[in-house]
Amino acid sequence: MTYRFRDLLALEPLSADELAFLLDQSKPFQEIQRHPLKKLATLRGKTVALAFFENSTRTRISFGTAAARLGADTMNLQAESSSLKKGESLLDTVHTLDAMKPDCLVMRHASSGATDFVARHLDIPVINAGDGTHEHPSQGLLDALTIRDRKGSLESLNVTILGDISRSRVARSNVHLLGKFGCRFTLCGPAMWVPRELHEPALSAGDYILLYQLGAERLRLAKPDAIVLHPGPMNRGIEITPEVADGAQSCVLEQVTNGLAVRMALLFLLIGGGAEEPASSAESSTKQSKESTHAAH
Amino acid sequence: MTYRFRDLLALEPLSADELAFLLDQSKPFQEIQRHPLKKLATLRGKTVALAFFENSTRTRISFGTAAARLGADTMNLQAESSSLKKGESLLDTVHTLDAMKPDCLVMRHASSGATDFVARHLDIPVINAGDGTHEHPSQGLLDALTIRDRKGSLESLNVTILGDISRSRVARSNVHLLGKFGCRFTLCGPAMWVPRELHEPALSAGDYILLYQLGAERLRLAKPDAIVLHPGPMNRGIEITPEVADGAQSCVLEQVTNGLAVRMALLFLLIGGGAEEPASSAESSTKQSKESTHAAH
Amino acid sequence: MTYRFRDLLALEPLSADELAFLLDQSKPFQEIQRHPLKKLATLRGKTVALAFFENSTRTRISFGTAAARLGADTMNLQAESSSLKKGESLLDTVHTLDAMKPDCLVMRHASSGATDFVARHLDIPVINAGDGTHEHPSQGLLDALTIRDRKGSLESLNVTILGDISRSRVARSNVHLLGKFGCRFTLCGPAMWVPRELHEPALSAGDYILLYQLGAERLRLAKPDAIVLHPGPMNRGIEITPEVADGAQSCVLEQVTNGLAVRMALLFLLIGGGAEEPASSAESSTKQSKESTHAAH
Repeated sequence: MTYRFRDLLALEPLSADELAFLLDQSKPFQEIQRHPLKKLATLRGKTVALAFFENSTRTRISFGTAAARLGADTMNLQAESSSLKKGESLLDTVHTLDAMKPDCLVMRHASSGATDFVARHLDIPVINAGDGTHEHPSQGLLDALTIRDRKGSLESLNVTILGDISRSRVARSNVHLLGKFGCRFTLCGPAMWVPRELHEPALSAGDYILLYQLGAERLRLAKPDAIVLHPGPMNRGIEITPEVADGAQSCVLEQVTNGLAVRMALLFLLIGGGAEEPASSAESSTKQSKESTHAAH
Repeated sequence: MTYRFRDLLALEPLSADELAFLLDQSKPFQEIQRHPLKKLATLRGKTVALAFFENSTRTRISFGTAAARLGADTMNLQAESSSLKKGESLLDTVHTLDAMKPDCLVMRHASSGATDFVARHLDIPVINAGDGTHEHPSQGLLDALTIRDRKGSLESLNVTILGDISRSRVARSNVHLLGKFGCRFTLCGPAMWVPRELHEPALSAGDYILLYQLGAERLRLAKPDAIVLHPGPMNRGIEITPEVADGAQSCVLEQVTNGLAVRMALLFLLIGGGAEEPASSAESSTKQSKESTHAAH
Repeated sequence: MTYRFRDLLALEPLSADELAFLLDQSKPFQEIQRHPLKKLATLRGKTVALAFFENSTRTRISFGTAAARLGADTMNLQAESSSLKKGESLLDTVHTLDAMKPDCLVMRHASSGATDFVARHLDIPVINAGDGTHEHPSQGLLDALTIRDRKGSLESLNVTILGDISRSRVARSNVHLLGKFGCRFTLCGPAMWVPRELHEPALSAGDYILLYQLGAERLRLAKPDAIVLHPGPMNRGIEITPEVADGAQSCVLEQVTNGLAVRMALLFLLIGGGAEEPASSAESSTKQSKESTHAAH
């Protein structure tokens, strides 16, 4: 099996088999994080452009480190230092980066769909590192990798997503991925029933803690072997208690390490290391954003 | 022929032969941008200091990528994170960078002449990445490379420079370079006849569009095979219409790619890869800023 | 002799022999700064995390360049772009970095003790790049290296520390280090006798110049072969006159170059290049912060 798409823009269009393939591809890169020397020469001579039009610390460092561990160089564009302030359009900025001939673009943007829009205009692989309230596919994959490692399988799990779900691209990516494996979801958070205009002023920190904070007592309502994930940054004492965040059921640091593995796998796969004949397969690959039908292989 | 100077501070003092030499040196680096693997080991073990005391996205990324593709490491100093805020002088900042033993300094500054001033105090090659309203020599070279590729020669072309020329270091570098090849210039822009104090408030966006915007109709006044260049960032809809910016006569993305080629050539040449005996030639080379006479070779 | 600790958090707990050992380890790295090619492959495949929660230009660039010259990659976290704004705790931020499996953490923080606190929670070596008013050990070492080179020995020197000493972590590291070699100190500065609440408004620039500025006349009160050090950035014309800053007795640029040597030595030593059997010695090493007794070897 190979990955059929040129880009990774969203998890929604991927089949369960395709998602499992991406997780399988991440396994050898998990191993590498345990080696004393973590650097490969696989993508030496390649360049990864990181265009973050929205602030990020961990995702940017994770993709940058993933690129470095594959031997690739990075170009770094951050919104606060970008030309966008001078009135340049998003597409001009991205075309300018592209004209410097990177081999892949990793992009984060505050507007849903911005990454799809950009990918339609470029010939290089584009990885969505989070677009508005749409998707954050590499986060969805690292969550699934963490869950599969801990539970042995993704099939038919009971998953509760707790928090401010309506605006969460992470929650959306999780639902799209885990839903393909028959997981059942309980969504729980203030925005589910309070109209958007009201809920921000309506909910104090005290109310949030009372209604939604994940503490030991609430966690006891789940199965004894339930695991706890958080995409970070954690708002300790509000969203989650230290007892749970640092407890035996918590996987938050495994998630971070798995993020590196997933991102190394994605860069390896999309830049051309994943196919037997990288050059020709890259030429024949179709843009994900132009695909409309998806079949499990 | 070899490049006679230690630095590249301005195009004005260079002869036509010297300018042509720099463009010729960029040709093999244009090729490299088309390779699947773009990384050389030529400057491995060398360090390029990038000191940007004025905001820049594309020029900084371009020089940084050029250095990386030659195998060099970079030191990054940006004004907004610099010690200058604490009251340190420009010269102290630059001497501090220099004491970390980079092999070349690429510097941008908001004051005209700042790069010349700094170069007089350092022993390493200095490349001016734009100083106030003075010059932006690597931009002038990449523009000329783009024009020469498209028109076959730089001799006796008719060049119109349109826009806010009086404060444009790019325009100045272009005039200095292309003038050496007998190009004839038409300069056109608001600051040419409106006193500086008046013209900013006096000219609305609507007025600018009416008088100076480059649209299809205005472009038809040029020769049918005229080409359009813009140093970016483009203020679309004001300075230029999308029709022209993205049209067949536009070279804006070629310019960006050629920028990498020119900057790789400059780093290669100035850091010592350009001469047969780098060490001795570096010792015998004279500072450009100290030269007062120039002869075509 | 080997370095007994896993971290470098402060100079205070180190013996004179241990400090001399660290300075001796820096000598070969001073040589490297004079080579045309300064890059080693010693730490190739290793990653150094640079977490600067307080602004810094020179120290961050120095550690970054030191890492690059040893062949290591860097992860860069700067406070202004960090997740701390979103309410994440310092420990969560640092644990997240750690979960990306760097081999060493270099950390600067505005709070005294923050680096010790973090080191107690991590398993990788931590280097304090300045914590509040506590210590800045690599600065203390580079100062001592500079002094030892110039004076031949650190034994029983007369050292005057002039300026705003009460809040200076550099002064504290200097006193801890040089004190071990029997140096005698004269501390001189406004905060010594003016209560903290009063001294900032009480002392104008004119007063400071009059009372504390190091100019040629004041310097003549020292021995004729006295040397002048400054950690930078220098506030020229206030703290120090240009005549002294750039005079024959000034070592300020040697300090910067020596900073690279010291930091390369520290990274080399702590990441595992310093011992014959890096892996086992790393396992058996004890955290400095947990040590309470220190003996000279």
